[in-house]
Amino acid sequence: MAKAPKSAISPTRAENYPEWYQQVIKAAELAEVSPVRGCMVIKPWGYAVWENMQRALDGMFKATGHVNAYFPLFIPMSYLEREAEHVEGFAKECAVVTHHRLEPDPDGGLRPAGELEEPLIVRPTSETIIGETYAKWVQSYRDLPILINQWANVVRWELRTRLFLRTAEFLWQEGHTAHATREEAVEETYRMLDVYADFAENWMAMPVVKGEKTADERFPGAVDTYAIEALMQDCKALQAGTSHFLGQNFAKACKIQFLDEGGTQQFAWTTSWGVSTRLVGGLVMTHSDDDGLVLPPKLAPKHVVILPIHRSDEERARVLDYCRTLRDALQAAPWSGGTVEVELDERDLRGGEKVWQHIKRGVPVRVEVGPRDIAADSVFVARRDQSPKDKGSIARSEFVASIGDVLDDIQSTLFERARAFRDEHTRTIDDPADFEAWFRDGPGGFASAYWSEDPSTQERLKALKVTARCIPIDTADDTGPCVFTGAAGGRRVLFSKAY
Amino acid sequence: MAKAPKSAISPTRAENYPEWYQQVIKAAELAEVSPVRGCMVIKPWGYAVWENMQRALDGMFKATGHVNAYFPLFIPMSYLEREAEHVEGFAKECAVVTHHRLEPDPDGGLRPAGELEEPLIVRPTSETIIGETYAKWVQSYRDLPILINQWANVVRWELRTRLFLRTAEFLWQEGHTAHATREEAVEETYRMLDVYADFAENWMAMPVVKGEKTADERFPGAVDTYAIEALMQDCKALQAGTSHFLGQNFAKACKIQFLDEGGTQQFAWTTSWGVSTRLVGGLVMTHSDDDGLVLPPKLAPKHVVILPIHRSDEERARVLDYCRTLRDALQAAPWSGGTVEVELDERDLRGGEKVWQHIKRGVPVRVEVGPRDIAADSVFVARRDQSPKDKGSIARSEFVASIGDVLDDIQSTLFERARAFRDEHTRTIDDPADFEAWFRDGPGGFASAYWSEDPSTQERLKALKVTARCIPIDTADDTGPCVFTGAAGGRRVLFSKAY
Repeated sequence: MAKAPKSAISPTRAENYPEWYQQVIKAAELAEVSPVRGCMVIKPWGYAVWENMQRALDGMFKATGHVNAYFPLFIPMSYLEREAEHVEGFAKECAVVTHHRLEPDPDGGLRPAGELEEPLIVRPTSETIIGETYAKWVQSYRDLPILINQWANVVRWELRTRLFLRTAEFLWQEGHTAHATREEAVEETYRMLDVYADFAENWMAMPVVKGEKTADERFPGAVDTYAIEALMQDCKALQAGTSHFLGQNFAKACKIQFLDEGGTQQFAWTTSWGVSTRLVGGLVMTHSDDDGLVLPPKLAPKHVVILPIHRSDEERARVLDYCRTLRDALQAAPWSGGTVEVELDERDLRGGEKVWQHIKRGVPVRVEVGPRDIAADSVFVARRDQSPKDKGSIARSEFVASIGDVLDDIQSTLFERARAFRDEHTRTIDDPADFEAWFRDGPGGFASAYWSEDPSTQERLKALKVTARCIPIDTADDTGPCVFTGAAGGRRVLFSKAY
Repeated sequence: MAKAPKSAISPTRAENYPEWYQQVIKAAELAEVSPVRGCMVIKPWGYAVWENMQRALDGMFKATGHVNAYFPLFIPMSYLEREAEHVEGFAKECAVVTHHRLEPDPDGGLRPAGELEEPLIVRPTSETIIGETYAKWVQSYRDLPILINQWANVVRWELRTRLFLRTAEFLWQEGHTAHATREEAVEETYRMLDVYADFAENWMAMPVVKGEKTADERFPGAVDTYAIEALMQDCKALQAGTSHFLGQNFAKACKIQFLDEGGTQQFAWTTSWGVSTRLVGGLVMTHSDDDGLVLPPKLAPKHVVILPIHRSDEERARVLDYCRTLRDALQAAPWSGGTVEVELDERDLRGGEKVWQHIKRGVPVRVEVGPRDIAADSVFVARRDQSPKDKGSIARSEFVASIGDVLDDIQSTLFERARAFRDEHTRTIDDPADFEAWFRDGPGGFASAYWSEDPSTQERLKALKVTARCIPIDTADDTGPCVFTGAAGGRRVLFSKAY
């Protein structure tokens, strides 16, 4: 006799985590591989999650004084060359436009024609093209600061891609600011790191560590790079957002200069910061389980799905009527997160199939309503953060009155659960043997250890497939003997395997 | 003695309309030419207008049952070739990616490397890549309809570009739907044309004519193209949005097939429809005057600007205090268009300079507040749809109570003014000499005339620089003798010079 599957997603996380990730995305209809190498199609449910992320982040950017604008998709090849580290960092993975039309090929079909005088790069990031523009806008200290964000698509020609986590084209936002002083630019760098951490924890319910990147993990051209790092359920870290203090590097490369209050010509100080559709991958890996996607209510496109149950046409009319009233009541119910979005699923599908679709798609609350519930004026409720078997009857009025609290509770439960997992898999380690054992003998996680950044230690990390994730801001001043070399003055670094 | 300029924008519309257009965009800080050929930088004020357009349209798309998704930026060259008219229409103006990295050039600098096996086209429109995807999604009639919209950037390598109206890269939305029947697809095509007309008239305050395109103006690959056409102040028409009935052309090219209820394999029927940042250009040309941009309140990023007037520090504190209270009261005031967005301009600039900046940027209502106004508990108000000299004192409480009505009145005044202009410059013409005179001797406008679409008449139109804009839906059944050939059965076509 064939054994019934124990979960909706196969394989489970324990069986094969990377494959489980792909299957969750497929079952939840978030995205799929496109026919274009390395590019994905973001399907409506996945895009709705991204739209919610955009809306929340955009509000936070505006609340911190930023405005949106839009800069060209293309960057002249010569612009990239202006900042040496920058071009080094991006030259190996960029899409190059060389022609501006197609013409009939004598062998049949078409071929590129109209060669450009200078090739154009499809932006992998926009520091240079935006820097060139700021140079025109800035003359005096009165023109500063410039606080602009852009929502855009970017292309980095990755060889190994993975839905949301690493794709040739992805969607993101990139903030680019210019300031009169170093202090202001540093302050901005930290401010946006804080915004990202706030968003990750309070919207995504994904706990993060804020920290400075070690020298070899910096953004190409940055003086300092800061990041938020989260721990996924396979104990690998995900860099979920970065904020760069660019010093005067790009201001010098692009000639962003201004007359200060004393009449002296100065170079501006710039920052850039970004998060991308990679966050959707982080969301999936932080909360989802072996039954599919789990969404924190504050980012879920729908919060409640109502599933009418009926056997006859007469029942159907009566049940749907009751369900519509329930939907309207829920949509009018107060919730700290805004409007409660309700889907009434009237599709003519088997009940079990329907329920499992919504479980796999991660809708936070499911409500079943049949004739018996109506008779009792109650509803049958299940929460996505609990087992599919944990469902129970509750008076309709009580359910409507409590929906806001239920959604808040799911949001905080998901966060606490993820934080407990992260804390369980974080260890302070001062002994090299313990360090190796942590990553070799168990699932690993975050290891907090003093490190000298001595190049000789890189081989040991490489052998473990471990990288320095960041120097956490909370313990930035904490120094001690390097876990590998024993040299004094090592900084507390968070290590882990990573995406 | 130098003559004082009579208006804030030079040249005026009458003096040089195309140059006036560029100067309005510059003075209002909407956009500028970028260093990348044919691409523009959309500046924060211009982008905020586009964001408001997006928000309104997105709500209308969702209200008509559509969802958003995202498809790849790149289209394999072979995809374009699948629909013969489609490739013919776009091959001459597309950006072609041929390489995926840069390498050091022995002569210095960099050069493209890593040639792709198949060139990729930066999407000029997405029928083919989306069609390929729909073909995978659709098996049964139960999978239809698919009602998806995408907000994206597209590239068409135009030789002669103009900010917003015609740029190599532009932002747009493209709806792509697939249906089980011809009737449903036709209905969708009309529905979205109506949505565009509704948006143009009720948000942009821009009157439009809905109509069908004549055969030679159709979208490449479409069976029927419908458009909304608006008349600009120079009496040229602007095609402001299009909705295409694609029949089964793309379904056949991309193999979008399904089993119908009777179990027969069928090709789907598809539509596509789009509007772009070109609408911002239409907005500028419809309402702006010789003092700069004029914005309909429903799309203005700010509705009221408060300008504090003070001479001493003591006055400053008192005036700002009063202004902040006023701002809060205005922002809480009821308005059919939503929240009243108020800017309190505290910048340390000469009063006149400040006022003129806001006039040029098109803020609908300006309020000046000085110590004398405070003493009388009144404010000094000016409307952007009236002369800069028409300003007057009004009791503060009355102003706050009426702000919603004032904004509604500005919105409808702008629409009525534009409609009166359009109607004044529209004429029904049945005589060929009148037709030529209309476009040759006066400013022209819309000429409504019977036309046979006979190729022999194209030369006459070309000589006048006139094109057939559309066959208005309202008079679609009206036929008569062709204005040029006298042949019976001509349809009522709207002609004009056009952008």
